[in-house]
Amino acid sequence: MTDDLSGGPRPKGRSARDLERYAGLFASRTRVMKSSAMRDLMALTERPEVISLAGGLPDTSTFPAEDFAAIMAKVAVDSSAAALQYGPTEGLGRVKDVIAHVMAAEGTKVDTGDVLVTTGGQQVIDLVCKTLLDPGDVVVAEAPTYPGAIPSFCAYQADVVQVEMDDDGMRIDVLEETLERLDREGRTPKFIYTIPSFQNPAGVTMSLERRKRLVEIAHARELLVLEDNPYGLLRYEGEPLPTLRTLDGGEFVIYLGTFSKILSAGLRLGWAVAPGPVLQKMNLGKQGADLCSSSLTQYFVAQYFAEGRWEPYLAQLKQLYRRRRDVMLDALAEHFPAEATWTRPQGGLFVWATLPDAIDTTDLLVRALTRNVAFVPGRGAFMDGRGGASMRINFSGVPDDDIREGVRRIGEVVAEQLELFGSISGTRPAGGGKRPQAEQRRDEAGMADVLRLPRRRANG
Amino acid sequence: MTDDLSGGPRPKGRSARDLERYAGLFASRTRVMKSSAMRDLMALTERPEVISLAGGLPDTSTFPAEDFAAIMAKVAVDSSAAALQYGPTEGLGRVKDVIAHVMAAEGTKVDTGDVLVTTGGQQVIDLVCKTLLDPGDVVVAEAPTYPGAIPSFCAYQADVVQVEMDDDGMRIDVLEETLERLDREGRTPKFIYTIPSFQNPAGVTMSLERRKRLVEIAHARELLVLEDNPYGLLRYEGEPLPTLRTLDGGEFVIYLGTFSKILSAGLRLGWAVAPGPVLQKMNLGKQGADLCSSSLTQYFVAQYFAEGRWEPYLAQLKQLYRRRRDVMLDALAEHFPAEATWTRPQGGLFVWATLPDAIDTTDLLVRALTRNVAFVPGRGAFMDGRGGASMRINFSGVPDDDIREGVRRIGEVVAEQLELFGSISGTRPAGGGKRPQAEQRRDEAGMADVLRLPRRRANG
Repeated sequence: MTDDLSGGPRPKGRSARDLERYAGLFASRTRVMKSSAMRDLMALTERPEVISLAGGLPDTSTFPAEDFAAIMAKVAVDSSAAALQYGPTEGLGRVKDVIAHVMAAEGTKVDTGDVLVTTGGQQVIDLVCKTLLDPGDVVVAEAPTYPGAIPSFCAYQADVVQVEMDDDGMRIDVLEETLERLDREGRTPKFIYTIPSFQNPAGVTMSLERRKRLVEIAHARELLVLEDNPYGLLRYEGEPLPTLRTLDGGEFVIYLGTFSKILSAGLRLGWAVAPGPVLQKMNLGKQGADLCSSSLTQYFVAQYFAEGRWEPYLAQLKQLYRRRRDVMLDALAEHFPAEATWTRPQGGLFVWATLPDAIDTTDLLVRALTRNVAFVPGRGAFMDGRGGASMRINFSGVPDDDIREGVRRIGEVVAEQLELFGSISGTRPAGGGKRPQAEQRRDEAGMADVLRLPRRRANG
Repeated sequence: MTDDLSGGPRPKGRSARDLERYAGLFASRTRVMKSSAMRDLMALTERPEVISLAGGLPDTSTFPAEDFAAIMAKVAVDSSAAALQYGPTEGLGRVKDVIAHVMAAEGTKVDTGDVLVTTGGQQVIDLVCKTLLDPGDVVVAEAPTYPGAIPSFCAYQADVVQVEMDDDGMRIDVLEETLERLDREGRTPKFIYTIPSFQNPAGVTMSLERRKRLVEIAHARELLVLEDNPYGLLRYEGEPLPTLRTLDGGEFVIYLGTFSKILSAGLRLGWAVAPGPVLQKMNLGKQGADLCSSSLTQYFVAQYFAEGRWEPYLAQLKQLYRRRRDVMLDALAEHFPAEATWTRPQGGLFVWATLPDAIDTTDLLVRALTRNVAFVPGRGAFMDGRGGASMRINFSGVPDDDIREGVRRIGEVVAEQLELFGSISGTRPAGGGKRPQAEQRRDEAGMADVLRLPRRRANG
């Protein structure tokens, strides 16, 4: 990158009085609007000397520059004026055809009339919130959840209830308990947000049985489910599972897809597939938000997929990311303490690691950055401060050697922290050791501690 | 265009029950969310046989396809991986430098630290609303206002108060009366939305005196102004005027710029320049909305401006649009009835024409479409049903012959309507003739009738 990835504009020496001056003008939502921990970190992690395992970046250096040039040359010859012009809010017909084709590759059949092309998958989350949420409305999400969804939920003043996961994804028994508790409080969630395959940040995948059960619950309760599926086609082992959209048939599942992880995040192109009445409202919301997605990047997608190169490229990405995942799992086994646990993803981009509770990964990151290594602290994936002993580490965007070295450096600062803790308390904390704060962070409804996924060594 | 520009997804035979099924789940804002009249029309107006004066389209066929290909080839060689990757939320540094350069060409000096790159200018309107508006908050806009802003205002449940204009732009005396009336009601507008140069849809430009007075009012009252300036560099005659941002110095003006009209709308790249605390909140809003704008289209912009071709291309566009404007004004003089009035824009893309009150331009459009010609009915530019006798007609996106023929056809259906009215009422309505509905639509505060701009033949 030639540019710094900084998390936000710098106020350039403006005074506190300045902030105060405008404060009275802000909408009430701005009081709860948060930055994604991920975005703020980027300013620090993008220094060239830092090995960043913090991002959720595809490795775009694998895309041949000559293919890029050839695609654009063809678009220039065939469609220059149209690629530079406004397009329809719902997206170009050719791109909707591509989307139906990509979804069919994962076994999901959709009608292009049910598709809305969006400015990245992120915009789907924003438009679903815009369409469904009044301030205070309940959204059910996984614990942990996608850190980038949190700014969207906050901007619409959602009350996010997080349901714990294990190696088989969201715990549907806990979901049912949660829905019953909400029933007793007279509250109905507006939607359930889930990333069923290779979850971000946890890396786990929802089992077939749970998928079926979740869709049954949605139908029985007439509850909408937002299925966020950026990684479904990035499976490195195991049998593909049907999407929730397939099991649902288009009644209560809003599907979120994206070209970010199978082609390019820089295009900012994703899509929603939703029941007609919901899609119509999302379309209205998109008109106000950005009129239409980029025609230029849509023509890029249409031309790329027309050339039939996407499946070999996807196969190449899967091979690369599978190897990097294995390198990361090996490095974790070598460099992380015995008390640590981590997930073993069958696909996607992320491993979720949980350290002894003595460690606070937000503090740890500061130390890690002095060693030029970065990750996403677990708290970024919770709305309520949980996740303090966990971290998300990415293996897709970093070469093998950097993964090894990055994990080694993190292991080093973890070991130092544990030593320090031992020297202060006189005991080196074991896996079960908890800090008082952690105790306080237990779920109010008495659910199990979801600071971490179940403590078995998933790589064992 | 290879694709239909249709206004929204078709529900494909879903039943009323279906709509009802989901209705209970929608946010309260969806009850007031509107489609931009413009977007809905596009489905009809984009049939190839239709001469559409309805769009607000730049003529992208003027951009050389070989330049497009060359720019992209250079991006592919230099920056393929970065152009395909996520970028910073605030935008690439190189693009912010370009923005400062473009604004300097209009005499406005800004610090790149105050710039946020957005997904089109439309996103600035959305983010300003997101940052500033609670439901029911007042926004002051011009009467008529940009039809595309209405879906954004509605999505944030704004109470939009529209202030009439004349040939010198927003009437600042009426603005002051409006602010005083709001004072008495204990209400303070969150911002004043204005398009000071070559206004969309009215085509008029705010005078220097009024610009100064508006900025003085903003400072005295500590009120934010959103200056929407897509067309400022498209001046065909007369002396350039300072932007509100220049007169303000960066205290209370939020500036909206875009590459849509000087380069390409298909890039979906615009920008905001705002006071630091406001910009920070807008940045948070953007994180939740779409993470960042397209890196690919940002690299396109950076490369294009690096090559120094933008000023000759802009000069070419100005020459072309100036001629088309003149063709349109001549055609109006030839084909529109004597009672009609219209504006004579010194720049931009639009003429605003007002017909005798017997004409309802929404009805007229239906007839016009049977003759394969389209425009934007005036009501699309008001929140309260006013504007029924007016229309917005675009001259930038259509060749000379189509402008002439399009205006001729509109003139024809207008004449037929007036004949019909005359044969029913026994009199052909004169310029002063009003329908009873028009009387009822007068502004509640007793302001002048803003169905139309002042009735002098601006082309006379």
